[in-house]
Amino acid sequence: MKDFLNESTIQLGVCYYPEHWPEEMWEEDFRRIKDMGFLYVRMAEFAWSIFEPIEGTFEFDLFDRAIQLAKKYDLKVIIGTPTATPPAWLTDKYPEVLNVSREGVRYNHGSRRHYNYNSEIYRTFSKRIVLEMVEHYKSNSTVVGWQIDNEINCEMNVFYSNADHDSFRQWVKNKYQTLEGLNDAWGTVFWNQTYTDWKQIYLTRPTVTHSYNPHQLLDEKRFISDSAISFVQMQANIIRSITDKQWVTTNGMFGHLDNHRMTKEVLDFYAYDSYPNFNKVIEDKSMMPLHDRKWSMNLSTVRSFGGNFAIFEQQAGPGGWVNRLEQPTPRPGQLRLWTYQSIAHGADLVLYFRWRTATKGSEIYWHGINDYHNLPNRRITELKQTSEEIHKIGNTIFHSEYISDAAILTDYPNEWDGEEDNWYGHFIKESKEAWFKAFQYHHIPVDFVNITQEMSLETLAKYRILVYPHPAILTETTAHLLTRYVEQGGTIIFGARTGYKDLTGQTYMKAFPGYIKDLVGVTVEEYTLLNGWQENPDVNLLNKQFKTTGFNEVLQPEVENVEVMGTYLNAHYEGKPALTKRSVSTGTAYYYGSVFNYQTASILLEDMEATNYQHLFILTPDIELAVRKKDGVSIYLLLNYSYQSQHIQLKAEMENLLDNQTCSGSITLTGYDVLVLKEK
Amino acid sequence: MKDFLNESTIQLGVCYYPEHWPEEMWEEDFRRIKDMGFLYVRMAEFAWSIFEPIEGTFEFDLFDRAIQLAKKYDLKVIIGTPTATPPAWLTDKYPEVLNVSREGVRYNHGSRRHYNYNSEIYRTFSKRIVLEMVEHYKSNSTVVGWQIDNEINCEMNVFYSNADHDSFRQWVKNKYQTLEGLNDAWGTVFWNQTYTDWKQIYLTRPTVTHSYNPHQLLDEKRFISDSAISFVQMQANIIRSITDKQWVTTNGMFGHLDNHRMTKEVLDFYAYDSYPNFNKVIEDKSMMPLHDRKWSMNLSTVRSFGGNFAIFEQQAGPGGWVNRLEQPTPRPGQLRLWTYQSIAHGADLVLYFRWRTATKGSEIYWHGINDYHNLPNRRITELKQTSEEIHKIGNTIFHSEYISDAAILTDYPNEWDGEEDNWYGHFIKESKEAWFKAFQYHHIPVDFVNITQEMSLETLAKYRILVYPHPAILTETTAHLLTRYVEQGGTIIFGARTGYKDLTGQTYMKAFPGYIKDLVGVTVEEYTLLNGWQENPDVNLLNKQFKTTGFNEVLQPEVENVEVMGTYLNAHYEGKPALTKRSVSTGTAYYYGSVFNYQTASILLEDMEATNYQHLFILTPDIELAVRKKDGVSIYLLLNYSYQSQHIQLKAEMENLLDNQTCSGSITLTGYDVLVLKEK
Amino acid sequence: MKDFLNESTIQLGVCYYPEHWPEEMWEEDFRRIKDMGFLYVRMAEFAWSIFEPIEGTFEFDLFDRAIQLAKKYDLKVIIGTPTATPPAWLTDKYPEVLNVSREGVRYNHGSRRHYNYNSEIYRTFSKRIVLEMVEHYKSNSTVVGWQIDNEINCEMNVFYSNADHDSFRQWVKNKYQTLEGLNDAWGTVFWNQTYTDWKQIYLTRPTVTHSYNPHQLLDEKRFISDSAISFVQMQANIIRSITDKQWVTTNGMFGHLDNHRMTKEVLDFYAYDSYPNFNKVIEDKSMMPLHDRKWSMNLSTVRSFGGNFAIFEQQAGPGGWVNRLEQPTPRPGQLRLWTYQSIAHGADLVLYFRWRTATKGSEIYWHGINDYHNLPNRRITELKQTSEEIHKIGNTIFHSEYISDAAILTDYPNEWDGEEDNWYGHFIKESKEAWFKAFQYHHIPVDFVNITQEMSLETLAKYRILVYPHPAILTETTAHLLTRYVEQGGTIIFGARTGYKDLTGQTYMKAFPGYIKDLVGVTVEEYTLLNGWQENPDVNLLNKQFKTTGFNEVLQPEVENVEVMGTYLNAHYEGKPALTKRSVSTGTAYYYGSVFNYQTASILLEDMEATNYQHLFILTPDIELAVRKKDGVSIYLLLNYSYQSQHIQLKAEMENLLDNQTCSGSITLTGYDVLVLKEK
Repeated sequence: MKDFLNESTIQLGVCYYPEHWPEEMWEEDFRRIKDMGFLYVRMAEFAWSIFEPIEGTFEFDLFDRAIQLAKKYDLKVIIGTPTATPPAWLTDKYPEVLNVSREGVRYNHGSRRHYNYNSEIYRTFSKRIVLEMVEHYKSNSTVVGWQIDNEINCEMNVFYSNADHDSFRQWVKNKYQTLEGLNDAWGTVFWNQTYTDWKQIYLTRPTVTHSYNPHQLLDEKRFISDSAISFVQMQANIIRSITDKQWVTTNGMFGHLDNHRMTKEVLDFYAYDSYPNFNKVIEDKSMMPLHDRKWSMNLSTVRSFGGNFAIFEQQAGPGGWVNRLEQPTPRPGQLRLWTYQSIAHGADLVLYFRWRTATKGSEIYWHGINDYHNLPNRRITELKQTSEEIHKIGNTIFHSEYISDAAILTDYPNEWDGEEDNWYGHFIKESKEAWFKAFQYHHIPVDFVNITQEMSLETLAKYRILVYPHPAILTETTAHLLTRYVEQGGTIIFGARTGYKDLTGQTYMKAFPGYIKDLVGVTVEEYTLLNGWQENPDVNLLNKQFKTTGFNEVLQPEVENVEVMGTYLNAHYEGKPALTKRSVSTGTAYYYGSVFNYQTASILLEDMEATNYQHLFILTPDIELAVRKKDGVSIYLLLNYSYQSQHIQLKAEMENLLDNQTCSGSITLTGYDVLVLKEK
Repeated sequence: MKDFLNESTIQLGVCYYPEHWPEEMWEEDFRRIKDMGFLYVRMAEFAWSIFEPIEGTFEFDLFDRAIQLAKKYDLKVIIGTPTATPPAWLTDKYPEVLNVSREGVRYNHGSRRHYNYNSEIYRTFSKRIVLEMVEHYKSNSTVVGWQIDNEINCEMNVFYSNADHDSFRQWVKNKYQTLEGLNDAWGTVFWNQTYTDWKQIYLTRPTVTHSYNPHQLLDEKRFISDSAISFVQMQANIIRSITDKQWVTTNGMFGHLDNHRMTKEVLDFYAYDSYPNFNKVIEDKSMMPLHDRKWSMNLSTVRSFGGNFAIFEQQAGPGGWVNRLEQPTPRPGQLRLWTYQSIAHGADLVLYFRWRTATKGSEIYWHGINDYHNLPNRRITELKQTSEEIHKIGNTIFHSEYISDAAILTDYPNEWDGEEDNWYGHFIKESKEAWFKAFQYHHIPVDFVNITQEMSLETLAKYRILVYPHPAILTETTAHLLTRYVEQGGTIIFGARTGYKDLTGQTYMKAFPGYIKDLVGVTVEEYTLLNGWQENPDVNLLNKQFKTTGFNEVLQPEVENVEVMGTYLNAHYEGKPALTKRSVSTGTAYYYGSVFNYQTASILLEDMEATNYQHLFILTPDIELAVRKKDGVSIYLLLNYSYQSQHIQLKAEMENLLDNQTCSGSITLTGYDVLVLKEK
Repeated sequence: MKDFLNESTIQLGVCYYPEHWPEEMWEEDFRRIKDMGFLYVRMAEFAWSIFEPIEGTFEFDLFDRAIQLAKKYDLKVIIGTPTATPPAWLTDKYPEVLNVSREGVRYNHGSRRHYNYNSEIYRTFSKRIVLEMVEHYKSNSTVVGWQIDNEINCEMNVFYSNADHDSFRQWVKNKYQTLEGLNDAWGTVFWNQTYTDWKQIYLTRPTVTHSYNPHQLLDEKRFISDSAISFVQMQANIIRSITDKQWVTTNGMFGHLDNHRMTKEVLDFYAYDSYPNFNKVIEDKSMMPLHDRKWSMNLSTVRSFGGNFAIFEQQAGPGGWVNRLEQPTPRPGQLRLWTYQSIAHGADLVLYFRWRTATKGSEIYWHGINDYHNLPNRRITELKQTSEEIHKIGNTIFHSEYISDAAILTDYPNEWDGEEDNWYGHFIKESKEAWFKAFQYHHIPVDFVNITQEMSLETLAKYRILVYPHPAILTETTAHLLTRYVEQGGTIIFGARTGYKDLTGQTYMKAFPGYIKDLVGVTVEEYTLLNGWQENPDVNLLNKQFKTTGFNEVLQPEVENVEVMGTYLNAHYEGKPALTKRSVSTGTAYYYGSVFNYQTASILLEDMEATNYQHLFILTPDIELAVRKKDGVSIYLLLNYSYQSQHIQLKAEMENLLDNQTCSGSITLTGYDVLVLKEK
């Protein structure tokens, strides 16, 4: 996060919607917010018809009064532009602003996020409301920043209104210039899909068997991302054209959106909404499930957008809508733990969602800090304590850097192409989670890095280890970059399905793994999808046996110095290579012909000798270790995700920042407890 | 049932559709119907295009001839108005009369119940056909009564045609008078749903994530119920304006319909269609599943509409449509058992569905008494015997009263709001069935009582015990009523989620359980939904241990005389109260912070000392006991739902009405057998 | 297959799409195709916009050049008419040519088979493109035949465009002549569905509960079949009007299509697309699953259309679309095995699909013989060997006859009516597979025979045994035919639900099993569907005990000479007959009152003394035996479907055609190996 915040320590805050409550409650609410030690109040992101109750008529009284009261208690206010929920008068009069399903069913007033990004009418109305609001608040010193819209691409990340079809047609025209170019990129010669006029082109429409041209689908997602970013950009431009004293961001992290580009090109910093209790369903029955710790993965991803960030919605109670997303109550200690989780991963500002549980609407079960009854409860007590702690230690961590020398590579082309491709797409998610789990449970801090065609070696070179699980799409440019990375001393590992596609999603006419064949020194002799039809083959990797899942590639070493580190133990390719390792200059390239799981990732981490801080700590798997550095000093955050106490060892003397005691040797963390240590 | 029937004993009958059969078969059919001992014949409910083959042209010949033959055999005829299935000519010419899905797909000719209640055109056509039919048959002494339409709200109980949207707009205008009132009731300030013009208002329309404004949805169901009742009322008014010699009813029991109000305001009595073989799927793998005995619950609900009732369709064989609802064949004895089940619960008239299995259409597997082949079969034999028995004992039971001093409370606001609310809705159904099961297996007769804002204490005071499982919506009025009920000596028990919502479905800003806090003497300290994410906590209730399900509320006694009867055994609220009991004047109020199951309901019944007739009988769980009283004399119906013989004890001498023998001591009921005893 | 092929031996070939590849690759591809020993090349079936890039403008250059190169390597070319994929310009300008879902969602450009058969516009465009292509290639001696369209009714076999509704209206008018006739046939008197004007008639449209008039649905499928055949006929007529030197066929085997009639009336021979790897999902967890051997059943069905046939797409690698149908890689030996499987069952021409895996579009995972990289692989090697073998033995098998003296009867009315009828439809499929499995594992060659109202006794009389599992629809004509079949010495067996419906799908007013009651000598006393509600009853059949499934009919012998061969062991019909056998003249008629499974079929086969070739072979269950005869000489094909070696015995000396050695006694077939033996 850049210096837009003008803070010197981590600040907390809360989301508060004055329009939901009797005005006579406001002042006591702001007073208690202040009393909690909170500085920031976020508001107004769904309040369009408060600001513009009638088309073209603008009113600011309600929020002016609320902001005035916030000012009285020295609070800072963040205002959301209200474009996520158009007024009833707008959509009723101009239904063409609404989003539509692929099958043609229009989404109507009654929930949220039912508009489309490409309607000219919607853009016109959005511009005007944003302009009016920014003009009104540009000189209000209590208002420190703007959140654009709310949770872009949440709930629905596909769009098929007429405006979207029209805009897509223009988008492909810009991209390909000629129909020949488009026909080539989409491989339309297959199944006679050749386009002979631009007007024949649409976003994917219903087809028999729900199968669509896969190359068109990939472009469709690029287009959706571009549409969303352009909508945010449009608002940011208005704000910046009027004021340079208020920062600009947006919040959330949702599909079909290049958050890296949006953060870099449009935002002052990124804001995330963190709800670790979405882990409510036992989604992971494998060894050592991540549960709420999966949010450390999400937060690491957020960190990759642009460094430190804000949390605009930090879970403050059980969440849920009336008819979906039923979450249990966070246990005592979890709200505090999750606050530290956000901070450990790079949050420099944390706002809880929300001050008080709503008494009406679809989110009456999305609990705030306060209950409906507004009486004391254990969540208030816990967050009051948390706030006091953060005030004590905040400036030591504020603006510090998350330290890691390993990274998991991700990229949008594979993510979006893989969504529709059952022959590799889900392997990406599986392996990413398996690797993150292995890093976590071995206390090896890890970053996520989004690799692009423009990326410099410098960005990668700071990591000792890169994991790039299943990049089916892999260009010559990327292969060249990764080769240079290994040559300068880096270690990289690839999984099955690497390198067989180009950026259109078409396959190369090359031996697998395509352009990185020379780096890893192997080709794929043959391969098979594993789909439950036959028993999954076993593999011996580094003298341990595992069952493979998902996919098997039989590897064929092509150069001398390829070391076979693992072989298949059955199927017709019994005895053939499954895992190889090759030294290239001072670096190393691994290739694994299958999908990773926790166990295979763990033994590979060991073989790669990843940095695990065993010289400083003996930790249990339930503890997450985050290492932050600021002004040359390391801070260690130890987070206990277990309900049970954990017994750990400190091999060096450190300062416990929470109680300012020196500590070393045996230490016990009670359930959900947190340690913040500073090296001495 | 009031005296409309003009009978002095329980009569039987059958549904017979002359238009389905060659006319030469009719007389023999009526002769054999008479020979079965049946008196009533129900017909014509789908015969619109027989009566009006061409728009505006009416013909009565076919049914006149059939009714004439029925008269010849001294049968009484019930005619159905045919509005459940409009003619092809009508819907083809006026497609606006058809119902439409929320997504806009129109339901067309080809099945049944595809019309909407609010089309002015459909109402006009319906009025005319009813008027013509009643005018034609008003003086026909063979025709004794009218069934309006058929199974209102069966198959489909939501309606989204334009007529429905328009009518709903008018309905909310009538209800709320001002947009401000509507916006308040629907909490539209949340997510910017505020309406600024009546024309913006619709029934719920498609939204992203299929989430709708929950308060609007609750009103939508009230509107559907009102629409259905008004359609029935319209027909009843026509009939009553023409004749006072023929009674008026309708049949079935389906969703989104306030049957209590309809019965009271519109009908002479209620008629139910009883198909205990819908238990075909093993829906209940818990301890002691209800299976066909669940229909005792349905029949008890029907009894709550307006006392004794008629059965217009009593199962007479396996049921099923061509492509759904596949039912096995009733076992020998079950058809007789189910007839007694209906009578035990309040049926004063029972018509079997149907005389002969249809040879065409969607219901060729909905078997009648006779098979396609019209030859003798075991069902005919069994029902002939049953008919003889009913003729023997019918007048002893006819118009008698079902005796119970316990009741389960239900209400429409919670039923309808709970349909969409995953945070309590399904608990109502679960707990209702658990309690009914506990009452059943302990031989404690129980009523259902529909509680309303207008209810008098008198109605409740006749019960010693009330069970009100999870009334999330609970007003101050209801709390006051229930408090007076307890004060005058009643016992009441509530379950989790009681009392946190008002009649709009919005939450109170009050400590739970809201307005009944003072009655039960506890508040809810905290709570959590149980959704499988963590192991469900155990509870110790009255010294027995159970696993809780669904929801946990941690109770906090607020007054002195609250007795803690159960505590949680684990989770972070280990040791805290789960069940409390409080004496109020001469009454008692229990509160249980979780969802009921068979076991918890059973031990609570014991603690409440419910009337279980152990002074008269020692029964096995498979036996249902029903107690009827007439002219001060008690009649006991004992029904064996098991395939196996049951050995029971009579502690007093009684008269077996079926064989007129005196009996006492050990008695064996064979599989599916029935005893009808009269106290001596 | 008639003599259209003008071959004297089995030929192989491959599908090759020149438009998908750079022209500089073509010649090398054709050279290598020739080098594989292939003679036939199939092309062009999706190339409409290559031939007609602009409406009315035709171009043949690309394919002319490709065919010229094929000719250079003495290859024969099969051209597909391209009507399965209309050009974008066509559907964009005339969207009425597109198919539409029942709910009204139009299927658009972007996949394939999205047109409807009944659009006059589409027929006009189709006629023109076919005419132009045939005119162009009629004298090209390299072009030997035409494939019409591609995989008729694949992907989607229901059609609800306006053109289809209109055409259906005309179709029923032709069929019934009067509305009275239609109303009778569809049983519209039930639920007031009576039609009073032809314009009220549509194909089934959305109704509540997704239930439709079952008799209308049956006609709907007849109509779809007729529409498809008429579309193929239209193209065949054009081709035949222009040339008599090129044969006409189409390919695939899909639903709602009377392939028997189409083959007989329209085609020169039938072509099938055989993908045994569709067995990818373990769909059959019963004893001895069929897996890829199920394709022997499919091929036997194909053989019933018109004798020997062609394979136009023989699996050549793993198959799959991007988002569906994920298949594992065929194991070494399976491609060869499946080639022999096709030949064993009657293929006289086999084309592999496809030469090289596509690099673009939805089918990039439908692997060809060559991989994307075009380098050597094991599939090429295996098929090269296979090709050499076929060249060696091909003419011995070519045009030989598949020998069997047992047949399973099928028919379209029951298949189509049963699709929607849960009271018997799925029993047909279950029992058919159970019987086929029993025949297979006991090495008894079996045919499928499609029984029609016009069938002669002669066709049936050549079989000693007929199995007709659950013909609910069974006419007096058929009953008469089958009775004569038994009287002349045949053995027949029926299963439950036989004979209770007529050709409209309405039930007879007769005792079950209707018109065959006199043949089998039993009636059905009562029956029940088994749906899991109660434990399925056991049965004792020929002194072995089994659990029954699906349905139970209690049989009542009606004549003296009915032998009860099996009885129910529990339920209320314990001890009553379940299986009967009756001698009629020299023949025998069995009736089994339940659904068949592998075990019951196996013991019945034993009782019927089916021909099992035990005088020649002792085989393991994993071996399929096919017997071919030509010029009085028998050829035995033994196919090992197991991964493991099989040890078998030859009791006679035979010639191994693959190595020309004489063999007898103990022989071992390795995994997936094949033996082709000729009697000496």
